[in-house]
Amino acid sequence: MKRQPAPDRVVRRLSLYLRQLEHLAERGIDKVSSSQLAGSLQVSAAQVRKDLAHFGQFGRPGVGYRVRPLIDELRRILGTDKTWNVIVVGAGNLGSALLQYKGFLKRGFRFVAAFDVARGKIGRHIGNVRVRHMGELARIVRRHRVKLAILAVPADAAQRVAERLCKAGIKGILNFAPATLAAPPDVAVGPIDLAASLEQMSFAVASGTSTR
Amino acid sequence: MKRQPAPDRVVRRLSLYLRQLEHLAERGIDKVSSSQLAGSLQVSAAQVRKDLAHFGQFGRPGVGYRVRPLIDELRRILGTDKTWNVIVVGAGNLGSALLQYKGFLKRGFRFVAAFDVARGKIGRHIGNVRVRHMGELARIVRRHRVKLAILAVPADAAQRVAERLCKAGIKGILNFAPATLAAPPDVAVGPIDLAASLEQMSFAVASGTSTR
Repeated sequence: MKRQPAPDRVVRRLSLYLRQLEHLAERGIDKVSSSQLAGSLQVSAAQVRKDLAHFGQFGRPGVGYRVRPLIDELRRILGTDKTWNVIVVGAGNLGSALLQYKGFLKRGFRFVAAFDVARGKIGRHIGNVRVRHMGELARIVRRHRVKLAILAVPADAAQRVAERLCKAGIKGILNFAPATLAAPPDVAVGPIDLAASLEQMSFAVASGTSTR
Repeated sequence: MKRQPAPDRVVRRLSLYLRQLEHLAERGIDKVSSSQLAGSLQVSAAQVRKDLAHFGQFGRPGVGYRVRPLIDELRRILGTDKTWNVIVVGAGNLGSALLQYKGFLKRGFRFVAAFDVARGKIGRHIGNVRVRHMGELARIVRRHRVKLAILAVPADAAQRVAERLCKAGIKGILNFAPATLAAPPDVAVGPIDLAASLEQMSFAVASGTSTR
């Protein structure tokens, strides 16, 4: 049976399941049912089973899932069974905060450099990395085999910088700039629209519906 | 005909449409077809029409949508036809960056205060607001009729702080802490999981599929 490619929202839920499984593993729990996994995540047990079935046969009816092996499988599917080298482009407030955000490393993402064009920022250290001039981009990307970049530049620079990233060999861009990016089909662009996220909240409050 | 409540992903796309319409309006364009609107957003024209139909009858077959009135309608639907007062809780690196992020105000969100518990931060100014002690939370929320909060505290404090927010009258929480929050049903929680967003990118690169 040929599997359909998994929709984005399924992949997004895999991250949720993975985090939840990691919490269980930390507490020494080694088996979990789909309804236990679903419980704290506001999805149904059937949804959990259906999502996982996109990628293979992991659990057993009436027995559930083994926590540790399922963590390994989900990491393998998400590509985070190895560590990814990541760069941050734009070392302003947001870029600096992201460079210091602790949550990335333990999920398999390691920052190797930051880039900016402002003379005053070049050479400074933020988190564990040095801020470099954009002129060094291609060399650093090649040397560290970087495939993923976080884009935190102003909106009017975003498309131009994204094109340089693609040319340097970046294959995934997490875009914090409030701009829609055009990129070649082999480059994944994940837009993070902070204002739109807040609009989801205002919609929920204004319409009197919870978004959950 | 009774309308179904719009799923989260439809509401999310409304934000995309709104941004695109605002770009068009800035360029002096006053009419747009669903396929033009869809074009730059990697959705289909049928999807645009279907999404908008959740909320009413806005366009005309063969004519399309009038840009300015549709902007007004979408803002009304999203609740951003008025300005929302917003607080940021947690004035660390990420909280500080969010307080200085320019994209919120022009989308209808105004920061009125930040909160922290660290003595060294209280009284400092970040962006346009002052950092206040958590003890002032209830008073400030009441005075400014704040309904929306951005949560940028460490994971192990998130649930406790969220409960204080709910008690103070907050109805929507945009949660940047890497923790799943439990909240009353009348409070909307929007989780922003930055590591999970990067996992979407690693999945796309590892599996050789673009996420778009």
